[in-house]
This record gives sequence, structure tokens and C-alpha cells, in this order.
Amino acid sequence: MSTTEQGRTEQGMAAVLHGARDLRVQPAPVDAPSAGQVLVAVGSVGLCGSDLHYYADGRNGPNVLRAPTVLGHEGHGVISAVGAGVDPARVGQRVAIEPARPCGRCATCRSGRYNLCPTGICFGSPPTHGLLRGQVAVPEEFAHPLPDDLPDAVAALIEPLAVACWAVERARVRPGHHVLVTGAGPIGLLAAQAARAAGAARVRVVDVSEQRRAGAERALAGTGVEVAAGPGDGVFDRQLECSGAPAAIADLSGLAPGAVLALVGTPPAEAATPLGHLQRWEVDVVGCFRYGPGAFASAIALAASGRVALAPLVTARFPLAESAAAIETALTDRTQLKIVVDLPTRSTS
Amino acid sequence: MSTTEQGRTEQGMAAVLHGARDLRVQPAPVDAPSAGQVLVAVGSVGLCGSDLHYYADGRNGPNVLRAPTVLGHEGHGVISAVGAGVDPARVGQRVAIEPARPCGRCATCRSGRYNLCPTGICFGSPPTHGLLRGQVAVPEEFAHPLPDDLPDAVAALIEPLAVACWAVERARVRPGHHVLVTGAGPIGLLAAQAARAAGAARVRVVDVSEQRRAGAERALAGTGVEVAAGPGDGVFDRQLECSGAPAAIADLSGLAPGAVLALVGTPPAEAATPLGHLQRWEVDVVGCFRYGPGAFASAIALAASGRVALAPLVTARFPLAESAAAIETALTDRTQLKIVVDLPTRSTS
Amino acid sequence: MSTTEQGRTEQGMAAVLHGARDLRVQPAPVDAPSAGQVLVAVGSVGLCGSDLHYYADGRNGPNVLRAPTVLGHEGHGVISAVGAGVDPARVGQRVAIEPARPCGRCATCRSGRYNLCPTGICFGSPPTHGLLRGQVAVPEEFAHPLPDDLPDAVAALIEPLAVACWAVERARVRPGHHVLVTGAGPIGLLAAQAARAAGAARVRVVDVSEQRRAGAERALAGTGVEVAAGPGDGVFDRQLECSGAPAAIADLSGLAPGAVLALVGTPPAEAATPLGHLQRWEVDVVGCFRYGPGAFASAIALAASGRVALAPLVTARFPLAESAAAIETALTDRTQLKIVVDLPTRSTS
Amino acid sequence: MSTTEQGRTEQGMAAVLHGARDLRVQPAPVDAPSAGQVLVAVGSVGLCGSDLHYYADGRNGPNVLRAPTVLGHEGHGVISAVGAGVDPARVGQRVAIEPARPCGRCATCRSGRYNLCPTGICFGSPPTHGLLRGQVAVPEEFAHPLPDDLPDAVAALIEPLAVACWAVERARVRPGHHVLVTGAGPIGLLAAQAARAAGAARVRVVDVSEQRRAGAERALAGTGVEVAAGPGDGVFDRQLECSGAPAAIADLSGLAPGAVLALVGTPPAEAATPLGHLQRWEVDVVGCFRYGPGAFASAIALAASGRVALAPLVTARFPLAESAAAIETALTDRTQLKIVVDLPTRSTS
Repeated sequence: MSTTEQGRTEQGMAAVLHGARDLRVQPAPVDAPSAGQVLVAVGSVGLCGSDLHYYADGRNGPNVLRAPTVLGHEGHGVISAVGAGVDPARVGQRVAIEPARPCGRCATCRSGRYNLCPTGICFGSPPTHGLLRGQVAVPEEFAHPLPDDLPDAVAALIEPLAVACWAVERARVRPGHHVLVTGAGPIGLLAAQAARAAGAARVRVVDVSEQRRAGAERALAGTGVEVAAGPGDGVFDRQLECSGAPAAIADLSGLAPGAVLALVGTPPAEAATPLGHLQRWEVDVVGCFRYGPGAFASAIALAASGRVALAPLVTARFPLAESAAAIETALTDRTQLKIVVDLPTRSTS
Repeated sequence: MSTTEQGRTEQGMAAVLHGARDLRVQPAPVDAPSAGQVLVAVGSVGLCGSDLHYYADGRNGPNVLRAPTVLGHEGHGVISAVGAGVDPARVGQRVAIEPARPCGRCATCRSGRYNLCPTGICFGSPPTHGLLRGQVAVPEEFAHPLPDDLPDAVAALIEPLAVACWAVERARVRPGHHVLVTGAGPIGLLAAQAARAAGAARVRVVDVSEQRRAGAERALAGTGVEVAAGPGDGVFDRQLECSGAPAAIADLSGLAPGAVLALVGTPPAEAATPLGHLQRWEVDVVGCFRYGPGAFASAIALAASGRVALAPLVTARFPLAESAAAIETALTDRTQLKIVVDLPTRSTS
Repeated sequence: MSTTEQGRTEQGMAAVLHGARDLRVQPAPVDAPSAGQVLVAVGSVGLCGSDLHYYADGRNGPNVLRAPTVLGHEGHGVISAVGAGVDPARVGQRVAIEPARPCGRCATCRSGRYNLCPTGICFGSPPTHGLLRGQVAVPEEFAHPLPDDLPDAVAALIEPLAVACWAVERARVRPGHHVLVTGAGPIGLLAAQAARAAGAARVRVVDVSEQRRAGAERALAGTGVEVAAGPGDGVFDRQLECSGAPAAIADLSGLAPGAVLALVGTPPAEAATPLGHLQRWEVDVVGCFRYGPGAFASAIALAASGRVALAPLVTARFPLAESAAAIETALTDRTQLKIVVDLPTRSTS
Repeated sequence: MSTTEQGRTEQGMAAVLHGARDLRVQPAPVDAPSAGQVLVAVGSVGLCGSDLHYYADGRNGPNVLRAPTVLGHEGHGVISAVGAGVDPARVGQRVAIEPARPCGRCATCRSGRYNLCPTGICFGSPPTHGLLRGQVAVPEEFAHPLPDDLPDAVAALIEPLAVACWAVERARVRPGHHVLVTGAGPIGLLAAQAARAAGAARVRVVDVSEQRRAGAERALAGTGVEVAAGPGDGVFDRQLECSGAPAAIADLSGLAPGAVLALVGTPPAEAATPLGHLQRWEVDVVGCFRYGPGAFASAIALAASGRVALAPLVTARFPLAESAAAIETALTDRTQLKIVVDLPTRSTS
């Protein structure tokens, strides 16, 4: 497989954001793996809404770009070297990269909620460089082995699928549940499939955009997930809110007593919320931030076994050299679901 | 004890609300206990915010008074008769009345969340008559025996304490937690004590009203609970929101990552909410509606053992005949915490 | 569909156990539906190990047959009449019968654990008559509607699938888990599929019997579940013990730290248990008794959508008149998985 | 406070076990704090059953003493120096030492169950040296600050109280529960108090030894905990098994449906267990190994506020030089509860 050998000449190239709409593919320093780390030759990186925000605005919510930073946090690759204390047999292993870098020692980390570590960093969140570069050093436990039956072409989607799996975990989706997914973007489509794979009796994805619904119909064909303009008169045990739009939670009357509403998409800092309904019917609202323990393993298991279909979500690919075009396409073409950037590899492999 | 014998002449008198500010103490029909029920000679009834709303406005949120209705749902009494299938030895037993009347059969009830039963009714919520009357028939399982060391004088407060215990249960308060209670009304003061009794390391009650804080200081003396104007720079694992005021949840920055915010006080139907914080820090919001399984038993245990002090919360008592005055006092005197109405009993006892 | 019309001449026939190996198909009284009940014309009944124990020994563990009793508790049928308070539109509805009859009012029921109701009864557990008869009255909430895409031929297996779903619920099986199922009988095969349907990454069914393994291979073809003689060197997050054999839990060294062991199959009253391992590695042992809230709904959803294959488990069918032969076959032919007894229906339908 | 300054001449002295009944107080190497560590001048160390096993037998269950090892894992002290990256203001801080040393990176640690880390070590478990020495380097997050109102004299008991708090957490003790504690040794007495502090309605400690019951009566005076020879006819929601004796779980008929049995005391590797009862009544068995997230913080909060009384459990104190006598006393005098060894400090302080 070509990606098991890293590109020789371009391995130091990276997509560096210098400011709003100023993305340059340029040589960049290559990490060296410290003790407990592996060096990963990046194979592909998916583009995410936060990448688009940094590119378009120079910021993503409260996080501001203050110095040139490599973008990208949805990536896969091949281990090219290992630091001290890591099994050398891992060299050559294909991995999905969990981009979180929690401290591992604070009370939050010790309690199993490392995704909330107050001092944690994340690849691709300025000022921490991201994955759109040849080589990146990753703590070995965050380089998750990929089975052979999970192709390179979709490996970058393990990260967003981990987001979806974490939403399903936080929302406590169980076999037999009726699940409403609001927002038919990539996360919504993956969350819907993950809910179905967790045994949901019925999963309905809703979106106000006809175009998005059409894309969802294509991407979810054969998965048993419904696509519709609204919740209809269904009664749902769980809502996975993946749109970030306050309108999606303005009316919770379709949720069953004791339901759970998971906030997966990034909401505005503040929005009107039907607190009366939450209180009267003991609906739990649970925030979902990235992914916690086990999410990557779940994502890999569901994708490798075909229970979640990733390939239909990849609507375009670009080489690293055309990263800016990739992002511009993502920003302007609303029919796109997930755009993947491929890193260069040696031609003879 | 006088209340073990029901009043002879006035047992059929009840406080009936005919319309806003039209409360009449008048003869009212006495229940007969059906199979599985006990008849309770009511001893005392505490007044609650919802009683005040019905009295002042003829409605409580969406629930509207449409026909004359007996008020009151915080009550205790003595079992005076039993229906078929109930152990006759229960006659004479002192009990706290859990006013819920769930169906016991729907999926919600079967799943252990009977407080959310869609067809359930509740004593004192129009059109269901309440407890401010001589005798009331109650399903035997909702007439909770009171131990001897829990005096009649505070027995009506078991109901609001059950609300507090349920909040502690829903909020998953654990030993060692730092707990913020917003709102220093009766529910807030009981929730604070219940949180402490559940092992909280630190409990701080906050209220914007200096008058309420002064009352809280008096009621909580010796309990180990702090009273303050605001959360200060503390970091809290749990917030028990007992004020119903949206301002109390406007700023959640004092909550720890992974904290839980319980909505105990009735919030407005809709209010601005810091969704961004909830999502980023995976703060769970849990609604609390009345009380579910075990709450009355917990309340009785904590009060009987002295771990929650009820007596300091009772700031005034009125006889049934002066029910209207009792409610007027509650409405106008902001220094009152809990006002209790005593039902008449035979003079010779 | 033939079972939508109840048999006219034989509807009062029942399979009555008079003593060990004395089963008689004889006329039996027909229930009349009380308020809140539906009358179900039974269509089919699956045979279970407990039926075999009553037949062979006149007892099942501590439960002893003391008077002639109709056997059977895994049944489906069609609603033929309704009692007071039940929607008459339910007449004609196909249903799976949940045979539990909890009181619905005790503290255990109120807490959502109605399967543990101390005074509850169950169809087919002496002295309560079972389902091998023409008509049976069932509380309406325990007659679970069957969708059209779930055929009559497998409808009796919803009950054992509910057992499996409950095991998955109690064991807290989550997406990504590695699950070991010990015992390849019908419950084991259903539990394995239910675990897979709940998102398990890997499910391995083990059995010491080569014959049973061969049957399991056939029944599980295409489900993604492994069949093997032993756990191998796998590390499992969950073990669903469905054999009732103490040997299956004698060595727990293949369970991961913090794993869960669910006791699904009826174990002996007492057996040697590796307590040291349980304590050192915080392995939780959870008992599973029948099915609690939501299990039937989950079972119906998983079976109707094809995520659990029931048909391959049905290895023989007998008419009601040959109930004794059906049981004898189950007792003597170890290649059988699930034997179903069909109730008579009108010949012209 | 004298312990804020470490002893000058004896700080390198340690109680080193060379073999069964061969304990020598001798000079031992002093740790230097690495990055992220603090150096703690040990103030006192409590003796535990495992220390006695190592001393008496040269082993503790499967763990065998193979080289001279410093004993002790229940300790407190004062921070005397800090490694790189640690706030120098911590020097002088009084701390309880959590003796666990998990890796912090494996899947078990990341999931919040660091006490089950497969590669974790623990102070005082051979071959890892323990706390009976002058100075020990501890990861800063495992040196838990002690408030001023928690005196040095009982600070060594925070560790066993953390065991008790973890048992309460694992057993899910809630306000209103009836809790049975089997075994009236130090852990049982602390678990009983911790259960009470978590809101248990009733706590009963039982022990077959009259002598131990007498000691328990003294230690628990005023705590609201009952002491008895057996469970009587009570029905308990939780059992905290602190004796390690299989007899304590031989009869579980006093546990309520859906109860939880926590294995806190070290059980034999294998013992007869009433599996039938566990399965039929869905009693959960949960192992408890040391302490997980939050247990030390809970223990400190409960002890500092006086909700758990530690002082009555300290029945004897010995200086480090008499460590062997201390252990011999613990082994031979069954009236002892907790024996504490005090480390030397500079005479002028």
C-alpha cells in the first residue's frame, strides 16, 4: 500500500494558514517523536467546519489565529518511526489520529473525561499545528490502529465518526430507541448511522435545506435511516442536535418524557431555550465535546464492519498542494459533504 | 397526639378556591377509600408557590382553574380508615402524603419515572382537589409512614424535602462535591441541606435578596451550609437551580467541566441559556419534576434523623379557617419561608 | 393471515400439565378480559427450558407443580376482545405477550424494576396458567403490537429475544465492546445477535458441545458473530453467561479490567466463583431476570428490521394436540434449538 | 507544626522488610522529585492488613516479597521540595499520599479507572518501596492537600477512608438506603460512617466477633451506626462486604430486589457464592479495588468536617524505630483497630 512509505521529497510540505484566506503550502518543520510517541506519515486529512472558519475568518468562535498554523485535525497515516518506550513493531502500522492532547494527570483526566482537560491542546487548533503536513508526532495511545478492511480512502472520516459515536454514548442511545437527528451535515449523517448501529429502532434525520436532504438521501441509502424536512408527529427518545442552529431545539414537544437532547453541533454562545419543557418532562441536555474514552475504537469497529458507511460521504478529494482550493470548494459548494485532502507519497510505492 | 383523632365537627370543611382571590372555607364531600387506598385525616398542609399562583391569578403557568378546587398538596395526616386489600393495622398510622397519582401502567411508569406519567394527576392541581380538607383518600403506597421522632409540626415539610431529595438524586450529588444552590426559598434551603446530607463537601446558597439571605442564615444555622450573595470564585460540581430565575443560569463559568445543572425551580417557558458553555464543557442540564422513586423515603429518613432541619423553615401557622389569611401572608410578607395550615382536630384530644 | 381469526371449535383446548410427564391437551376455561385487559387468541408458543423442567420433574428449581397448570410463556396471538377502558380498535391487532404480571404499585415496581416485583406472577409458572391455550387475558400494556414485517412464524421468539435484549441492557453493552457469550442455546444465540445489534465490535459464542456449536454456526450464519469452543486469548469487555453452567465463570481471566459479567442462564443456587478476580479487577456481576422496561419493544424493533434473525432458530413446529411430543422432542433431541407449538385456528382461514 | 520540617538526622531511616518477620529500621536511599513530582517528608503511616501479611508470611496473596522492600502505603506528610513544573508554593503543604502510580495513558486509565491500570504500581507493594521512610517522591496530583482542621494525628487514616469512600461510590449508596456492613475492622467502621455520610437512612455493622463488636461500639459512638451480631430481619439495599470472609455472603436473602453487594475486603481467590439469588433478584456484585477518581478528595472532606470520626479508630501509636513492635502488636492484639507509626521529625521544631 502506497501510504505505508512516506513521500521522500515532499514530506516536509504543510498547509499553513497565515491569516484569513491566506493559506500557503510550504515547507514546515518535521516533528521528532519523543518518548511514548509515534511519528505518523500523514496519508489524508478531512476538512471540517472549524478549518473553514479559521480560513475564512481567522478565528473559530473564541479561538483566534495569532501566528501561522498548520490546519487539519481529521487525519490518518502510517507510523514511520517510534520514540523511546514504544514497540518498534508499530512502524508501518496504519492509524487514525486522535488529535486530542490532554494532560493525563489532572482531576478531569483522571476521572475519565480527558476531552474536557482544561490544559489540553488539539492538533489544528491554533496555536497547535495540525495534520496537513508530512509527518506528525502523536502520543502512541492516540494513534489508533486501523484494520485492513478499512480502506485509506475513508480513514480520515474516523475522526468525525468518533464525534458521532461519542454523541451516541453521551446521549445514552439504546436498542429500541427512536432517535431524531437535527442537521444533515457530515456529523449528522454519521451520528444517524452510529445511532442505528447502536440499535436504535428508528432514526430520522431532518434538515431545513432541500439540497442537504437530497445529499443525505444519497449518503444514507440502504442504512435504514429516514430523511425528512421535520420531525413529523413522531415521539423521540433521543435528539442528537448536529446543526448548531438554535431553531433545532426551539420546540422540544416531540421528545418523550425523560428524553435526552445531545448538543453535538457547536451552538451559539447563548440562545433561547425551552427550559419549561426541559424541567417539566425531565429532559436531559448533554453537551458533547469531541470524543472521550473509547470513541475512536467504536468508530473503527463500526466502520470496518460496514455498519457505518463512510465512502458515500466523501464527495471530493484534493492533493495537499491544492489545499486552498479544497477549502474554497467546501466554503462555496453546499452540495459537498466531506472533502478529503491527500498527502503526497512516494511515486514508486 | 391530637392529630391521631380527627376533628368531629369540622372534618368536612375544606379550603376551596372559586376563582382568583376567592378562597372559601366551606363544607366539602369526604372521600371514601377505594380498594388499595387509605383514608387520611389531614393534619397539616404547607403552602407552596403553586398554591399562591392559583390564588392570586387563578392559574399556575399553563394550568388554569376552571371549577372550584380544594388547594394544597404538601400534607400529612393520620390514617382513619382503609379500603379493601389494605392492612387494617395501618389505621392510626401517621403518614406523609405523596400527592402524585400516576397511572402505574404506561411505559413511562413502568420504566420507573412515574412522576412523568402523561396521564397522572396530583392533589391540588386543578381540577384535582387538594389536601386542605378533613379527609382524603390516597393510594396506600403514597401514604408514607412517619417515624415517631418526626413531629407533626414539621410533617408537612416532607413533601418539599422530597422535592429537594429528588433534585439531589437527579443531579447525582456525591460525597465530596461542591454544590451551588441558587435561590434561598424553602426549596433552596432544603436542597442545600439535602446536598449536604448526601455528603457534599461544600454547599453554598446564593440569593440576590438580602432579606432572603438573612432568612437563610437563620434557617441554616449549624448545618454547615454557606449563604452568600453570589458564587464567588468557587468551582462547583453541581448547581441546584431553585429560583426559577433565568439570571441564575446566565453565567455558568463557575461550573466545573462535566458538571450537572439541575432545574428545580419552575423556569419560564423559554429563556436565554449559555448553550455554548454547556456544549464545550459537557455540562448536563437535568430537569426535576416533583419527585420520583424513593424521594419520600429519603426525605423522611433525613428529617427524622435530624440531618435536615425542618423546624426553622416554618415561620407561621394558621388554622384552616384562616387559610385565606395564610395565603395573603405568604404573598405579601417576603420574610416568610414556609407557612403551614393546621387542620382542625377534636378539642378534647 | 390465518391467526387473525381465532379457531372456532378448539379455542378452549389447552396443554395442561397434571404431573411429571403427564401433559394432557384438554378443554380449559377461557379467560374474560377485565378492565384494562385484552383477550388474546394465542397463535403460537415457544418451548423453554423451564417448560421442560416442569414436564420432566414436576418442578423448576424451587417452583413446584402442585395442581394441574397450563404450560407456556413464550407466545404471540391476536387480540380478540378488549376489557373496559381499552381502545376497541386494538381488536385484530397481532401482539407478542409479555407474560409478567407485576403488581405495578410496590416500591420495586415504582422504581422501574417490575420484573423483580415480590408479588408478581408469570404466565406458565405454576400455579399461574400459561399460554398453551386458546384465549388468554393480558393487561393491555403487556400485549405488545407486532409490525407487519414480523411474521407469525417467529413471533413466539420475541419473548426469548426480550430476555436477550434485557441481558444486553443490564450488561451495559456499548458500541465497540468485545462480547463473550457462554452457552450456544437459544438464549445465547439471541444474546449474541442482540449484542451485535447494540454495536458490539466483536461477539464470540462459545460452547463445549460440538453439536451445539454446529447448530450455532448454522443459526448465526451471516450475523458477524463468531462461534468457537472457548474464549481463546481474546480480552472481553462483557460476558453474557447463558449456559447456567458454573464452569462458564470458573475462569474470568479473559475479562478486561472493569468488565461486566451478566448472569442470564439460570445458575445453580450456589457455585464456586472467582471472587478474588471480581474484586481485584472490579468486574461487575449483574443478574438478569426475565426482562424489564423496554425489552419487548427493543426485541420487536431488532427482529422486525432483520437485525436479529429469528427464523434459523426455529428447528421444529408441532400442533397444540401434539404438545407432549413437542416437549419430548425438546428433551431428547439435542440438535433442536427452539420448538414452537402452533395453536389451532379455523381451517378455512 | 513540627512535621513541616523534616528530621535532619533520621530522614533516611526506613522500615525495610527483608523476609518474613525480618523487619529492619535502617538507612535507605531518599527519593529525588522528578518533573511533576513533589518530595514528601513522611509524617505518619498507618498499618494495614497487607503490611501484616507481608511481614508474617513474606507475601500477600499472589504478591511475593523477593527483595528487601520498605513497607507502608497509608501515609501523610509535608511537601519538602518540588520537581520541575510544580508550583514551589506547595513546599510546606500538608498532604495525604495516594499511593497509586497508574500509567495515566492506557485505555483503562483514560476511561477513568486508573485504579485498574494493568501496569500501575503502588507504594509498599513489593517490589515498590513504601512510605515507612523519611522522604518519598510522589506525583503531585497524588499528594492531596489537607485542610487545617484535619489533624496530623489522624491524617494517615485518609487512605483507608478513601477505600471506604470508593466502596460507597462503587456500591451506589444513596440517601435513604439501608446499608449492611459486614466486618467490623477499620475498613468496615469507615465504610459504615462513609455510607452514613452519604445519606444512608440506616447503617448496621455486623461481625461474628464479640470483641470486634465491642470495639466497633466504642469507635462508632454517636455516629448513628448500629452494631450487631447479624443482619437480623432487616432488608438492605446495599451490602458493603469488608471482612473478606465468604461466610459474609453465603446468605443474601436479606438483600432487597435489585440490591448491590460491594466486595471491599479481599476475598479468597474462589468461594461458594449464592449465584441463584444474584440472578433471580438482580443483585449486582461490584468489586472495589483501592480507590478511583475523587475518593481521596471525598475522604478529606468528610473527615475534615467531622462527618467521619477518625480519632476513635487509632488505638496505638509507635515511633518508626519500633515498627516491628507495631506490626507484632497488630498481629497479636485483636482489640487493636488502627495502629499508626510516626516518623521522626527534627527535635527543635
